[in-house]
Amino acid sequence: MIEAVRSGKLKESKLNEAVRRILQIVFKAAETPKGGRFDKEAHHALARKAASEGMVLLKNEGLLPLRNPRRIAVIGRSALYPQFQGGGSSNVNPTQVDIPLEELRKVATDAVLTYSEGYPAGLEEDPKRIEEAVAQAQKAEVALVFAALPPAVESEGYDRPYLGLTPQQVALIQAVSRAQPRTVVVLNTGSAVEMGPWIEGVGAVLQGWLMGQAGAGAIADILFGRINPSGKLAETFPLRLQDTPAYLNFPGENGQVRYGEGLFIGYRYYDAKEVPVLFPFGHGLSYTTFEYRDLRVSAEVFKDTEGITISLEVSNTGQVAGQETVQVYVRDVKSKLVRPVKELKGFAKLELQPGETRTVSVPLDFRAFAYYHPGYKRWITEDGEFEILVGASAGDIRLRKTVTLESTLDLPSLLNIESTPREWLEDKRGRAVIEPILNNLVQQMGAAMGTGEQAIGMDMMGFILDTPLRSVLEFQESLLPAAAEEIVQELLEQVRR
Amino acid sequence: MIEAVRSGKLKESKLNEAVRRILQIVFKAAETPKGGRFDKEAHHALARKAASEGMVLLKNEGLLPLRNPRRIAVIGRSALYPQFQGGGSSNVNPTQVDIPLEELRKVATDAVLTYSEGYPAGLEEDPKRIEEAVAQAQKAEVALVFAALPPAVESEGYDRPYLGLTPQQVALIQAVSRAQPRTVVVLNTGSAVEMGPWIEGVGAVLQGWLMGQAGAGAIADILFGRINPSGKLAETFPLRLQDTPAYLNFPGENGQVRYGEGLFIGYRYYDAKEVPVLFPFGHGLSYTTFEYRDLRVSAEVFKDTEGITISLEVSNTGQVAGQETVQVYVRDVKSKLVRPVKELKGFAKLELQPGETRTVSVPLDFRAFAYYHPGYKRWITEDGEFEILVGASAGDIRLRKTVTLESTLDLPSLLNIESTPREWLEDKRGRAVIEPILNNLVQQMGAAMGTGEQAIGMDMMGFILDTPLRSVLEFQESLLPAAAEEIVQELLEQVRR
Repeated sequence: MIEAVRSGKLKESKLNEAVRRILQIVFKAAETPKGGRFDKEAHHALARKAASEGMVLLKNEGLLPLRNPRRIAVIGRSALYPQFQGGGSSNVNPTQVDIPLEELRKVATDAVLTYSEGYPAGLEEDPKRIEEAVAQAQKAEVALVFAALPPAVESEGYDRPYLGLTPQQVALIQAVSRAQPRTVVVLNTGSAVEMGPWIEGVGAVLQGWLMGQAGAGAIADILFGRINPSGKLAETFPLRLQDTPAYLNFPGENGQVRYGEGLFIGYRYYDAKEVPVLFPFGHGLSYTTFEYRDLRVSAEVFKDTEGITISLEVSNTGQVAGQETVQVYVRDVKSKLVRPVKELKGFAKLELQPGETRTVSVPLDFRAFAYYHPGYKRWITEDGEFEILVGASAGDIRLRKTVTLESTLDLPSLLNIESTPREWLEDKRGRAVIEPILNNLVQQMGAAMGTGEQAIGMDMMGFILDTPLRSVLEFQESLLPAAAEEIVQELLEQVRR
Repeated sequence: MIEAVRSGKLKESKLNEAVRRILQIVFKAAETPKGGRFDKEAHHALARKAASEGMVLLKNEGLLPLRNPRRIAVIGRSALYPQFQGGGSSNVNPTQVDIPLEELRKVATDAVLTYSEGYPAGLEEDPKRIEEAVAQAQKAEVALVFAALPPAVESEGYDRPYLGLTPQQVALIQAVSRAQPRTVVVLNTGSAVEMGPWIEGVGAVLQGWLMGQAGAGAIADILFGRINPSGKLAETFPLRLQDTPAYLNFPGENGQVRYGEGLFIGYRYYDAKEVPVLFPFGHGLSYTTFEYRDLRVSAEVFKDTEGITISLEVSNTGQVAGQETVQVYVRDVKSKLVRPVKELKGFAKLELQPGETRTVSVPLDFRAFAYYHPGYKRWITEDGEFEILVGASAGDIRLRKTVTLESTLDLPSLLNIESTPREWLEDKRGRAVIEPILNNLVQQMGAAMGTGEQAIGMDMMGFILDTPLRSVLEFQESLLPAAAEEIVQELLEQVRR
């Protein structure tokens, strides 16, 4: 570094700026009093609130919130040993860790709660633990099955080869829910799990994620309706591992992984391939219901630089207060490059009392309608229609409106000597130049084909549309005033003027 | 070229060889007598036989072969204007073209055949043509609906944007089959079509492809049972366009198409993703039935260079003579690189009289068990198990047997400074060197993690398996006798000796 400064390769001012940034942090750290205090209770309460807002109620057939059951069978090792954080470098030292079983006991003071381990710490299978759990579930009014993937399956540094719970956990949920139809599954996993073998049999599923040190209390709050769940999925839950976008590419081979899904990440893949999913991106239930209506836009025709604001009315049509996350997706109706079916471009979370209605407004700016074009090496917008899709999840679109964008960009032509007639026609300046030439050419080629059934039906324009214009002209070169390449170069001059 | 020879850049002998090859063809052409004769009748008869062997009976609910119906409604323009060849450069001049309607009349001499166009030459929709067809179908004992994609949709130089028949053809088949349950669909398309909207309603489907000038006679032969169909699909018929392997990549954009399916071409994709299909690769029905049994292998353990021969007994268990194509797929049970679920490695077509049994033998050589490895830059075999799967299609595997291959290859180690412990363990020489070191390391790291629930459950080996060995050792560098990179270099020396 010193040498680089001496030789003039690195400006001393640049080095000073970099050093200054480092020293700023060093001084800040030095100023912090050692053994500094913070309010552990307040932090823990915040952790509980954050956990309750992040958990997602995936399924609920009227079983939740629990209505004062007298006897509750709490089943599953993670009710006593919560899987509340990730492994490896995401492992931190908590100030305290709440235990789900204890938090449930604090809330359900009138009920008898039994506990049964259900599954061992590792991947062993043990029918006896299942038998015990089933016996307790049968005697109870409701069974709460807690399931967390063991750290040996889900942690830092390695990936799950399968997407299900462990075989023991699957067998446990199946057996318990057969014995006790009022079964709630509480999951603590870091990501999606397959539920095909057991989802139909259970009455409710709460996804608690890796919920942090106060998550146990949040589970109790949600199960007993002290808090109305409001989390929404930030990923798709697929039906099967084979349905996932990376299935054929992961984990790669020979030191390489093909990044196969391209733009079609997550819900964009399931949308485009029309593959059914277990729970769509954005999904999450509440103990109340919300009605969406009256979608408006600030302008139906607008300039990309100005953007638009969409508004709608959302009402709480149920019996309890609740929060809803209104999601705004944008669909590019027609574009030069391939686009996803729709993309989330804005959302708003709002709280509503029973019967209350509020107006939700979400701004959509340039970037909500733009995409990166590698040809222009920048984010571009294109004139045309966009559909605004407003919904409660990627799979539950409730309101739609079409708007028209006017691009303010004056992009250069990307046409070149290898461009096809299709590309010429799609280029603003190119279209004007090429259309009369192409129509003439198609007539000539059609005439040359004769009049058989095959020739009559054949789509001459289709035939030449994806062949480089130069090659198309070469077919007819004897009729042309100059060499095909010269003609195309001359046309390119015209569009570049 | 002359300059290149003079300057010595191109050897004159090389040029002479190239010129000699061209002249050979020129002389051969010159020797051919002008206006040379050939037996048009014999060629046409051969074309008819080839067509009948290539057509594939896709579906048949006992409707075919036709049993002397007295009144037959022949419906669809392609019964009169057969789509018998492709467009563009695949268009050749036939010596004669047989017409399906006429060939059917020649065979069904006792029946009354009515004809109705059903759909126009292009893509227009016309309810009147459908009404007329339905009226004729109702009066007949059986309806034969001919459908061919118009050349404007399927030809050279452009691609079908959709996978269905035309809207008019779909509506026609639906209406006719509702009016006449005994409906046979005869297709002349160059590739797969979607049949979702109509397949359930029809009694039989014969895929006639672009069948050549004598194909019309072959259709008559098959429909009336003069020839027992024996063609098998050389491609998968998907349920939906969205299910196809190239769906998200085709037709590309910005001058580029991502070759997204990799190895998973055709049935390999549907197999791997477990996506249901309309008709699997290799599918094709017969008017008789075949039984497969007693699969044997020439050796259960064999050297790659020797290969094996598989044998089985195939019986015609039906009432008429027929031909069956027995398909032999090979599944690589475990491999270093990703492999398809199974691949066709051999097949045999044989003719059997009713009640006859014959032994089928199919040899499987080195290449049936090898795959190309870009690291070694050659086709390699690996020790281990392979499953031999024998069936009547990729979706109808009837016999299985596991064999064990012993590779005769002595491949060099591909381990390098960036290789992961997983790669070391998978390398023959690497495993011996690395296993004791890794076990030791895992113990040390486990001890360093402490004894919390997280630490106990965590899979230390899993944690380090996919991290470069050098980086793994760097975690513990303070305990090592030398720098991590030096140690790995020393280990590499050992495996390269």
